[in-house]
Amino acid sequence: MPLSQIRIVLVNTTDPGNIGATARAMKTMGLKQLYLVEPKSFPHVNASVRASNAIDVLAEVTVVDHLATALQDCHLVFGTSTRIRELNWVSLTARAAAEKIVINPKQKVAVVFGRERCGLSNKELQQCHFQINIPANPDYSSLNLAAAVQIVCYELRMAFLHETKLEEKIIELADVKQQEYFYQHLHDLLNKIEFLKPIRSQQIMDRLRRLFSRSELDVNEVKILRGILSTIEKKLTSKS
Amino acid sequence: MPLSQIRIVLVNTTDPGNIGATARAMKTMGLKQLYLVEPKSFPHVNASVRASNAIDVLAEVTVVDHLATALQDCHLVFGTSTRIRELNWVSLTARAAAEKIVINPKQKVAVVFGRERCGLSNKELQQCHFQINIPANPDYSSLNLAAAVQIVCYELRMAFLHETKLEEKIIELADVKQQEYFYQHLHDLLNKIEFLKPIRSQQIMDRLRRLFSRSELDVNEVKILRGILSTIEKKLTSKS
Repeated sequence: MPLSQIRIVLVNTTDPGNIGATARAMKTMGLKQLYLVEPKSFPHVNASVRASNAIDVLAEVTVVDHLATALQDCHLVFGTSTRIRELNWVSLTARAAAEKIVINPKQKVAVVFGRERCGLSNKELQQCHFQINIPANPDYSSLNLAAAVQIVCYELRMAFLHETKLEEKIIELADVKQQEYFYQHLHDLLNKIEFLKPIRSQQIMDRLRRLFSRSELDVNEVKILRGILSTIEKKLTSKS
Repeated sequence: MPLSQIRIVLVNTTDPGNIGATARAMKTMGLKQLYLVEPKSFPHVNASVRASNAIDVLAEVTVVDHLATALQDCHLVFGTSTRIRELNWVSLTARAAAEKIVINPKQKVAVVFGRERCGLSNKELQQCHFQINIPANPDYSSLNLAAAVQIVCYELRMAFLHETKLEEKIIELADVKQQEYFYQHLHDLLNKIEFLKPIRSQQIMDRLRRLFSRSELDVNEVKILRGILSTIEKKLTSKS
């Protein structure tokens, strides 16, 4: 399921700024198909301003009079809601819905968002196969419209990426031999300056090892650290 | 880690509307601690309008002059970025970062967001232990500021709701102030032994900061490290 084929549908949006912000939210996550059902004001300068560089998504918007028109060629329709309205209505979290959507590669999918103040009507929700719920603060669950779109599109992208890891870094980590040379070097210096008392010498060295182990030293870092140790040794020798 | 204890820090925000939208994004996910570092215009009517019913979060905002002030009592600081800037800088996805945050119940955590146009400077990122990356469309990764806050807060909430009862760590991590004392101490010694040449002094210190940041120093480790530095200083002085 390419993300660009997933349709976002906004119903009766009041604030054109939210339409622009929706376009931006979609584009940042790789979506681009936006339908508007009876928007109050569109096109509008506030939509363009808030769209920022997602102006191409706005330019391609499809405006329709009825929700049914926006959905007629879709196979799978999700309606967003912060309420669980009916018993026996299948409600999925945004994450579960996204996972469900991306594993159906040939279906046309729409995700429908309701009005800023009152969401989707029960009649509109009836036209959806599933309800999507964004887990929010029960004391204040009123997400801004574009913010809700942002989260759903983000979950779609995350599902799409299958949690692929960030591009692997090409750092050359120090190998065990290099690490051991460093620990030996450190140990020798700490002995020389009489920081290591026999009674707790092992304990301190173990602790320092754990500290540096956690940071997974790379080759250059070991060079810097050993450079510091050598410089200290030279200073101590030259002054003795 | 109660969500309400996680601090969101906005640096040099230009548009007060984004500050209001951030407050709303936070409250919908159960966060409420907002710090502003040198906002361009605040308070401002656009902030209040966009905050909607999260006006209580705005009322409690802390405004400071420097990022360091906003972070000084925090143990763990995350900086958001859409770029991977440096090798061997630990970058986590928003999801991984959220999971990391919620399993550490007693730490004070800050998540820092940069300017609308250019994010955080490298110098500001140096004050963070980890970088957070929101996986976005490589062709257009410019999320609106409040939208980025929304996603991070949403992931925090999701992680919080699914919080696994991993055994709680009872390690007392060093706070930023203690860490800064250590870096200053290290810097002074490296200067004294003439390890830091002016031309690459900053580069070396940045590198050492990243190294120690990755290992998340605890209070005792900072004591040991500073104990080593003091002992070396004494030896150098007594021999001079």
